[in-house]
Formats: sequence, structure tokens, C-alpha cells
Amino acid sequence: MTFRERCQRAWQTNQSLLCVGLDPEPGRLPHSLASRPLNEAVERFCTGIVNATAPYCCAFKPQIAHFAALGLESTLESICRHIKAAHPNHLLILDAKRGDIGSTASNYAKEAFERYCADAVTLSPYMGGDSLTPFLEFRDKGIFLLCRTSNPGGDDLQMLALEGGERLFERVARLATERWSGSEQVGLVVGATYPAEVQKVREIAPKLPLLVPGIGAQGGDLKAAVCAGVDANRQGLFINSSRAILYASPQDDWAQQAAEVARQTHHAIAVSLRT
Amino acid sequence: MTFRERCQRAWQTNQSLLCVGLDPEPGRLPHSLASRPLNEAVERFCTGIVNATAPYCCAFKPQIAHFAALGLESTLESICRHIKAAHPNHLLILDAKRGDIGSTASNYAKEAFERYCADAVTLSPYMGGDSLTPFLEFRDKGIFLLCRTSNPGGDDLQMLALEGGERLFERVARLATERWSGSEQVGLVVGATYPAEVQKVREIAPKLPLLVPGIGAQGGDLKAAVCAGVDANRQGLFINSSRAILYASPQDDWAQQAAEVARQTHHAIAVSLRT
Repeated sequence: MTFRERCQRAWQTNQSLLCVGLDPEPGRLPHSLASRPLNEAVERFCTGIVNATAPYCCAFKPQIAHFAALGLESTLESICRHIKAAHPNHLLILDAKRGDIGSTASNYAKEAFERYCADAVTLSPYMGGDSLTPFLEFRDKGIFLLCRTSNPGGDDLQMLALEGGERLFERVARLATERWSGSEQVGLVVGATYPAEVQKVREIAPKLPLLVPGIGAQGGDLKAAVCAGVDANRQGLFINSSRAILYASPQDDWAQQAAEVARQTHHAIAVSLRT
Repeated sequence: MTFRERCQRAWQTNQSLLCVGLDPEPGRLPHSLASRPLNEAVERFCTGIVNATAPYCCAFKPQIAHFAALGLESTLESICRHIKAAHPNHLLILDAKRGDIGSTASNYAKEAFERYCADAVTLSPYMGGDSLTPFLEFRDKGIFLLCRTSNPGGDDLQMLALEGGERLFERVARLATERWSGSEQVGLVVGATYPAEVQKVREIAPKLPLLVPGIGAQGGDLKAAVCAGVDANRQGLFINSSRAILYASPQDDWAQQAAEVARQTHHAIAVSLRT
């Protein structure tokens, strides 16, 4: 199954464009898990969130820094194995924002695709096309390139106007859809905080899957981002929410409350798609 | 001690601008280590290289992907602890090329500066100034921003001309020295494969430390890069060599041969500085 087919299957079988981000923070874990060893608490928390929200989402996006800062790589391995085994029709996106060349890039690709069995990984485009090749050699896997990120500082480089008038993030989108995307393994990261740029990216890259962070805690406009970003099939998006779902409640009902926020977000996306 | 003082101390006490990169590859370890468990072989190899080359260099740069692909994070922790304990006047640069925002960036900073006790970490500038802040909050630590990388694909974005004529890598250098560098914690990565761009970056950022990969296996011109990159004090550079030193010999004399290549490179840098 190609990466594009895997995306299609995730959208269609789950009837959802929602991606649930897994960013565990020790200080925000549910009270009932706080007394357990940290690795066990993080694993129970993340698998609990995964199982509770799976009916409402099409993808999971663990953010590797939240595990690496705690030395919990083996916990992340377990969580990824669980996602692949229990939810095979969901996409597993490793949010790592890697970017390097040669044997180093090959090793990052092994880390993402073999060690954590991810279907896709986020990458920075700054080092250019040859930094992507070692990832694309995993022919059934995908990459999401940072294009227009959700943070204000993204302006510093991404909004710079090039000679001829194109802005840097537009060039990245164009390279991704023309020069770098022969095997349909490339997607783009575009923040929901900038719906006008989401729309611009969708115009430049009509068929590329877009990973859209920035709704929920970051304040992005869900409806505007969905309307700007859907493709011709009313799909093409992975709308990510992390903290609003993960930390819906610190009480014993944390999994149910996370599921409820995921259900509401799924519903809000569906409503946006109909307008 | 500030980051800039730590750089100064590394250059002066070691009388060297050479940085030794630690990129262990299981298939290229010395024959005499091949029968050992991988974690033990990698630790013995890296600490052996560190101890053998320390007289000729001022910095060590472990590349994290080479450990992460093998699940050897705890081995990297041990190697970093060894470097800090046995060679406190050498700079420890974690080559990770991270880049993210908010709590995620804080976690990457903890990973680099607390878990691996690095003095500095390499970062991608693509997400802009606010992605650097969580790293700069570690006030005695430094960051090296990708500016003009050593690979041909670096052209794809870094050489793009902006409105007004400045190229993207020049803008990164200017932001690094003007807007992002208030506390003197910022350096830049510029490939030895492009001496003209090294010179340009040095003009824009006369005082910033430059991490220069690309000599040795990548074919960069050592003399041209050194002459283009030194600052007014004939310092300011961390000239990196990895594979040419690491894999000088697979035989029992691997450590001595690595030391010999490091000695020759140190000498070549010194000769370049005198011309």
C-alpha cells in the first residue's frame, strides 16, 4: 500500500480528518497515574488517549521531544507498536522535524520508520531536496515538510518575498508538489493559525496531504482552516489537536473527557466541511 | 562561564580549531570490537576516539541520529558524560538539527543540555526566532543555526535571492547576528564545501562562532574554508571532521590512526592560519 493509499484509507475508514497529538508532560498527567513510575504512567496515559479517541480521529502524532527529554524512547516504541496493532487504519505520524543528509538522514529515517514504525515523519525543508531522499527510499512511507508553521516567528523566514514575488513558504509548497514529490510520498505542514496561507498552499499543491497544527490551545480558526485546506474530495487534511484533547480533565474521567473533546472536534470539522 | 567564554577557552587551551564528529556506524567499527555487544562496542569506540584525538582538537560533536537509529541513547549519555568529565576544556556540541516551538522546543533543549549535558546544539532556523527562545533560556549554553549547509541540495532554499538581492542564507546570518544574538549564544553552520559563502557569512557576522562541516570525506577545501572563516583573532571556527578520523583504520591501531589523522588535520589548519 502506498503512502497516499494509506492516507485515503485513514480518512475513509474513519470518516474523520482529526489527528490526535501525543505530547505527554509529566506535570499534567492524570492524578490517578501520578504515583506510578513515569514510564508506566506515560504509556498508560498515551495508550488510554489513543484507545479513547480512535473512534473520532484518523491519525495519531506522537511528538518525540516529549519522550526524549525524559529518556522514554522505549515507552514511545511501545506506544507506537500499540497504535499499529490496535488501530491499523489510523495513520501514525512521528513528529520529529528532522533534517540532515547522507548517512545521518538514513539513520533518522530508520529511527522513524523502523524503530517507531511510523507511516510518516515531519521534516524541515531547509537543507533541500537531497536531505529528503533517504526518507523517500522507504517507498511506502511519507514525509510532511514544514511549510508555513503555526507560530508567529514563522514569519522570520517563511514569509520572506523572493525575487519575482513568491514567498519562501510558497516556494517550498511548489518544490514539494513539483520537484520533490514524484512518488506521492510528500505532504506539507501548514498552521491553522494562518488560513490564508493554508488556502495558498492548497492552490499550489492541490493533491498533497496537509498536516494542520494550531487549532485548540494555539487558537487557530478550525472552520477557516478546514475550508481553506480541503482538497477536491473534501479530504486531504490531518487537523491536529494535542493539548485540548490530552488534558481535557486531570480527574478519573480523563479518558472519557478526552474522547468527548475529540468527538466535539470531529463534529466541528464535519460541520465545517458541509458549509 | 558564558557560551562565548567557553568557546574561547576551547580554542585557547587546546590551541586548535578542530572538532571531531562522532558518527558511529555498526558496519565500520574496528574489527577488534565487532564481537562485543553493540552498545559496548560503540561506547568503547567513541571514548577511544575521544581520548586519542583530544590533544589535537577543541570540540567533539556526537551526531544523535547514529545513536537513535540503534536505540543507543544511554550509550550516548555515557559518552557525553565521559567527554565532560575527562575533557572539560573541549566544547561538546550535540548535532541534532532540532527545530520546534513552545513546550516541544523546551523538551528538545532539556534533551540536549540536561540529558546529554551538551554545551551547544545544532538547530534549523526555518521556524524562526521564537523557536530559538527555549534554547537560549539556558543562559550558559549555545546554539549553532544551519545557515549554508555543505550539501548540493542546500541550494534549493538557502541560495534563493530575496527581494532586494540578499540570499536566504545571508538573511539567516544577519538575523543571527542582529535580532537573535543578544546574549552571544548563537553560532552558525556553514559548509566548507562553499568557501565563498563562508567568507560572506564571516563578513555579515564578524564575531559569531562558525561550525564548519564538509572537509574530509565530503571534499571541502580546508585551507579555503579556514582562510574565509577565521575571525579577527584568528579563531572563531570549529572545523569538523568525522569519517576521515573515525574510520582511519579498522585494524588494532584504529585509535592511533585516528589520532594521526586528527594531528595532520590540526597541522593543516595551523598552516592555513599562517598563510
